[in-house]
Amino acid sequence: MTGSSIVVLTGGIGGAKLVVGLSHLLPADQLTAIVNTGDDFTHLGLRISPDMDTLLYTLAGLADPEKGWGRVNETWNFMAALRAVGGADWFALGDADLALHVERTHRLAAGETLSTVSGRFAERLGVRIRMTPMTDQPVTTRLSTDEGELDFQAYFVRRRCQPKVRAIDYIGAADAQVSPGAREALQAPGLAAILIAPSNPWLSIAPILALPGMRQAIRNAGVPVVVVNPLPGGRAVKGPTAKIMAELGLKRSAASIATFYDGLASAILLDDADAPLDRPHGFTNTIMHDLPDRIRVARAALELAAR
Amino acid sequence: MTGSSIVVLTGGIGGAKLVVGLSHLLPADQLTAIVNTGDDFTHLGLRISPDMDTLLYTLAGLADPEKGWGRVNETWNFMAALRAVGGADWFALGDADLALHVERTHRLAAGETLSTVSGRFAERLGVRIRMTPMTDQPVTTRLSTDEGELDFQAYFVRRRCQPKVRAIDYIGAADAQVSPGAREALQAPGLAAILIAPSNPWLSIAPILALPGMRQAIRNAGVPVVVVNPLPGGRAVKGPTAKIMAELGLKRSAASIATFYDGLASAILLDDADAPLDRPHGFTNTIMHDLPDRIRVARAALELAAR
Repeated sequence: MTGSSIVVLTGGIGGAKLVVGLSHLLPADQLTAIVNTGDDFTHLGLRISPDMDTLLYTLAGLADPEKGWGRVNETWNFMAALRAVGGADWFALGDADLALHVERTHRLAAGETLSTVSGRFAERLGVRIRMTPMTDQPVTTRLSTDEGELDFQAYFVRRRCQPKVRAIDYIGAADAQVSPGAREALQAPGLAAILIAPSNPWLSIAPILALPGMRQAIRNAGVPVVVVNPLPGGRAVKGPTAKIMAELGLKRSAASIATFYDGLASAILLDDADAPLDRPHGFTNTIMHDLPDRIRVARAALELAAR
Repeated sequence: MTGSSIVVLTGGIGGAKLVVGLSHLLPADQLTAIVNTGDDFTHLGLRISPDMDTLLYTLAGLADPEKGWGRVNETWNFMAALRAVGGADWFALGDADLALHVERTHRLAAGETLSTVSGRFAERLGVRIRMTPMTDQPVTTRLSTDEGELDFQAYFVRRRCQPKVRAIDYIGAADAQVSPGAREALQAPGLAAILIAPSNPWLSIAPILALPGMRQAIRNAGVPVVVVNPLPGGRAVKGPTAKIMAELGLKRSAASIATFYDGLASAILLDDADAPLDRPHGFTNTIMHDLPDRIRVARAALELAAR
């Protein structure tokens, strides 16, 4: 690698682990996370950005280490009171978590961009790496299922990933623009590599890649692009990746992941449980239970990029 | 009294005490509270109805008995998290209280009226008397002060009633309509009396009376109209009534209160500490510390109406 800065494309939980690992290996101003916003939705009038918030909470040390989402030491009195007056309670909103949704919605309504609002949240919570939404325009990941069309959160939370997925669309992506922060990071002269976090390719990374110019910007960067296999040994660490792959008629293997990123990724970081592939790859234990795991996987991805 | 139903015009804290007293003396379907919404405002994008909520919480047994506003056993994690990301924290929003603001804002945005939303909240929380906002249109009580124009909450909460009040306007009142519930209650054939709670006349009752047709509807009812003196012995129980009267050049006495209601009220329930007036009146200890106090004052008001 000739440059020194790193861009990572990421969704929520799994990706956030890699970003935390990277944040321990790189100066904060050399790391930019471009975050999926296809899961964003409006609930009870509040604009919610689940992947942005998961990354924010994880980097700020505020994430709930047990649940994998939401905040540590969260309380749920809002939900109890909402239920008491007959409000929709299928999406759990913690009392502290709610502050970000209310403030974000308020500031977006006042004309600020999601980038600006998110940047302020990160700054106030002491997050020093750059984290930018993939776009400032609304994009909605919508699944065609055997129960009809479902937005991501309806599928993921309300229906607990039970419906069979037939196709996935990224509504609004064609009319959205890559966010200024993402564009700037991908065009930075000092860029050394682009990493793709072990997030769900179809649900978390594809919305990013669906933005006009995003694939081209990644190619134009002219740097190694390394994917961390989100399906170690053919099994999803968390979430519906494996289930969705089966429903989409794909073999559940690292090879399918590599095929998904054909023409974009220059190498794939495989799990020790994976079979070797006939394309550039590296191996590590990609399961990230604790911080040393996260740093190890981040280092392995950086080393693969540098090879 | 020939009829059997009672209407009470009320603001928040002081008025709610009288309404609770009345609710112990009358069948629930015979009592309608017409509630001031001039203090309603939009904060952080949320539509907040302080007097409606104070009455709701008080009647539902959810009010904080110490503070006089908000909910009992409230938690404040939303506020702490909001402060951490730089949100406006001058107006305290409890975690459970917030549920009503979010749900109300959401339902109003969906096209429901404040009457409908409030009715559902009351029903869900087990409040059986009828409580209706004075209007479903936005009315804003605005104070001209030595610090400029201030909406009620900015004056009351942010500036803690410190600015000197020169005039008070009820923005939007001239274009607002008396709510269906208020109109129906005032026109009910069985109406026996209209009470005016010991709320601040200028801040809590005047917005109600400023609605087109409201004064006429009260007169047309042809029933006794009894005011409970909100300034026992010339001193406000709570809030800025006495201060505002001084700033408006009014003598702080029950006589000034009676003058304010000239042409509308047929009698005034005075405090034992007040001097007699040369108009119909009754006496009781109008300070309402506990439930027996509230029932006693409510009974005295009903008896004065029946004389």
